[in-house]
Amino acid sequence: MSGGEVRIDPWGRPEIKDYNRLYEVFGIRPFGEVLEKMKEMGVEPSPLMRRGIIFGHRDLDKVLEAWHNGEPVAVVTGFMPSGRFHFGHMMTGLQLTYYQRLGFKVFVSLADAEAYAVRHMPRKDAIRIGIEEYVASLLALGLDPQRTEFYFQTARQGPYHEMIQLFSSKVTYSEMEAIYGELSPGKIVSALTQVADILHPMLPEYGGYMHVVVPVGADQDPHIRLTRDLAMRMKGDVELNEPAATYHKLIRGLDGGKMSSSRPEVTIFLNEPPEEAVRKLKASLTGGRNTAEEQRRLGGEPDKCPVFDQYLYYLVPDDNELEDVRTRCRTGKLLCGECKAWGSERLFKFLDGYQRSLEHYKDKAWSLVETPRY
Amino acid sequence: MSGGEVRIDPWGRPEIKDYNRLYEVFGIRPFGEVLEKMKEMGVEPSPLMRRGIIFGHRDLDKVLEAWHNGEPVAVVTGFMPSGRFHFGHMMTGLQLTYYQRLGFKVFVSLADAEAYAVRHMPRKDAIRIGIEEYVASLLALGLDPQRTEFYFQTARQGPYHEMIQLFSSKVTYSEMEAIYGELSPGKIVSALTQVADILHPMLPEYGGYMHVVVPVGADQDPHIRLTRDLAMRMKGDVELNEPAATYHKLIRGLDGGKMSSSRPEVTIFLNEPPEEAVRKLKASLTGGRNTAEEQRRLGGEPDKCPVFDQYLYYLVPDDNELEDVRTRCRTGKLLCGECKAWGSERLFKFLDGYQRSLEHYKDKAWSLVETPRY
Repeated sequence: MSGGEVRIDPWGRPEIKDYNRLYEVFGIRPFGEVLEKMKEMGVEPSPLMRRGIIFGHRDLDKVLEAWHNGEPVAVVTGFMPSGRFHFGHMMTGLQLTYYQRLGFKVFVSLADAEAYAVRHMPRKDAIRIGIEEYVASLLALGLDPQRTEFYFQTARQGPYHEMIQLFSSKVTYSEMEAIYGELSPGKIVSALTQVADILHPMLPEYGGYMHVVVPVGADQDPHIRLTRDLAMRMKGDVELNEPAATYHKLIRGLDGGKMSSSRPEVTIFLNEPPEEAVRKLKASLTGGRNTAEEQRRLGGEPDKCPVFDQYLYYLVPDDNELEDVRTRCRTGKLLCGECKAWGSERLFKFLDGYQRSLEHYKDKAWSLVETPRY
Repeated sequence: MSGGEVRIDPWGRPEIKDYNRLYEVFGIRPFGEVLEKMKEMGVEPSPLMRRGIIFGHRDLDKVLEAWHNGEPVAVVTGFMPSGRFHFGHMMTGLQLTYYQRLGFKVFVSLADAEAYAVRHMPRKDAIRIGIEEYVASLLALGLDPQRTEFYFQTARQGPYHEMIQLFSSKVTYSEMEAIYGELSPGKIVSALTQVADILHPMLPEYGGYMHVVVPVGADQDPHIRLTRDLAMRMKGDVELNEPAATYHKLIRGLDGGKMSSSRPEVTIFLNEPPEEAVRKLKASLTGGRNTAEEQRRLGGEPDKCPVFDQYLYYLVPDDNELEDVRTRCRTGKLLCGECKAWGSERLFKFLDGYQRSLEHYKDKAWSLVETPRY
């Protein structure tokens, strides 16, 4: 395994300042090369791809090649059901729906084992949250349950747990420590279980999806590297492929700092009252100037603006509309007050629609997932 | 967990010289108290119990109480399918058949996960050995397949693997290190899997056998202690009982030293040609004196005699017959030559009978166990 000396803690909450470091040290490739490939293939990239929010990848080109050739392909992700479904999760959710529309099979792991081991979540809470927060939210975001496998880690049947057993002897303690930092038996088993989450769709019992892509935030790369290494080390016992991955940036808080549930005033929650979210948006830092006069003269700075971030990431999926807002801001035609009023309306509609949809799916979600017995 | 400073390595091959240390340091109880209890209950102890080979226990009295009250009780063991079924395994096998006759349910784990993690056994070899060496041998020793559950660890279905996940967060790395010494991810997962082997029969899905006894060699006590602690720590999430255990001594080699497959000249193998085993027995050290004259005068010393060990452990299950041999030896009436000739005949018959029976069961064994998929 490589890159041990520069560590990203997947159980912490790191801020990644320098994306170029990731390219150099860990071998993540810039996403631009995939965009070119997609153009050649005539595939429309998603807004997150087009807008540079998904900034890096490993081997996505190979997965697209396989997809282009009609081979079975899958997108895999996992959510730890230990809290609210938030914007970071939504970004993954949006990517799942994108790949699903292309024809990818979707696997969603509800990481109840990890919630228990790492966050010490009571079992029943983790199960309820997994279903009513995570599965229901993904359905509300448009994921088609007919073409998605939702499962809890501990309740997964078939050779999934057999894989965890086999993986455990293909990695040393030091290697895991170099990637994850201080370990406990629970963290070791959790990490190996995540490896199984990513690799088990390749087994014939689960459909034999040999080409798998995992969309993650950059902080999750340690899991990806361990998983890729383990896939190779299983040769001779189990035939597995190195999984592909894409890496996305995380949306900033409304003060330009970190978005986090521990900073509720600058963080918009998907399940808070839309009025409340609008109140926060209206109080947000912007990319505006000190005075209206100055702003009309110099124009605003949308790239520095947390309100514009909301448009960029999810509120304005239409590129032309987004470009129009950007231009009018930059040329000083759109001032922050007007912009916030417009954005507030969008945000209200978005949250209101999402929350109604979520309520609608909460009951349905229970019928889609086999729950753990303990 | 207790006793960290005095360590018995369950993956090494320790020689235990001082059984009293076990009573004092680890809290293993002398077996004599169970013999009294059995007498009160009118239960016939097994030869290994009567002869002091099973020398210690934890909570067996409680399990017998439950059995006496008609509650469901089970005996659980595991074998690592990494080599030949040997005399140590046979001693466990004999205990399984004893408890089975009393009405205990029998669970036999084939520890293929451990064989892979600790001994790096190729998967197919472990599976074949598990079935053709271990399952077939246990059948040959008289275990009733109708009342035994044989399973490979990796292929176990139901909430067994769910338990491993939950256990992993109830123990710290330091605690495991104090018990097992140097750890690897594979050893950690193996140890937790053995805990699941012992505890999962208590779950309703496997019959709800809340009273479980595990017959082990004293070197396996670290697993027992970890398992007992984890059972208690699961309270609130899963209701489990502390498992009981019994501890037996290991038979000596024919030179009075250690019996081991790495010392084939002084070790009798269950599957070697009976003629070969007889040849070794005839060359064995004995408890005899320097000359026949001296022996007639002073008598032999059966307690120091590896040939007598063979009678004591398995060749002479009848107590009266054994006592007769012991007395004739001690009084100088039975000399070593005659004794060895007599013992050789017994050994030949025993091995020949066992080996024929083993051949008979080899095919049948395959139909009794679900094999792992990888």
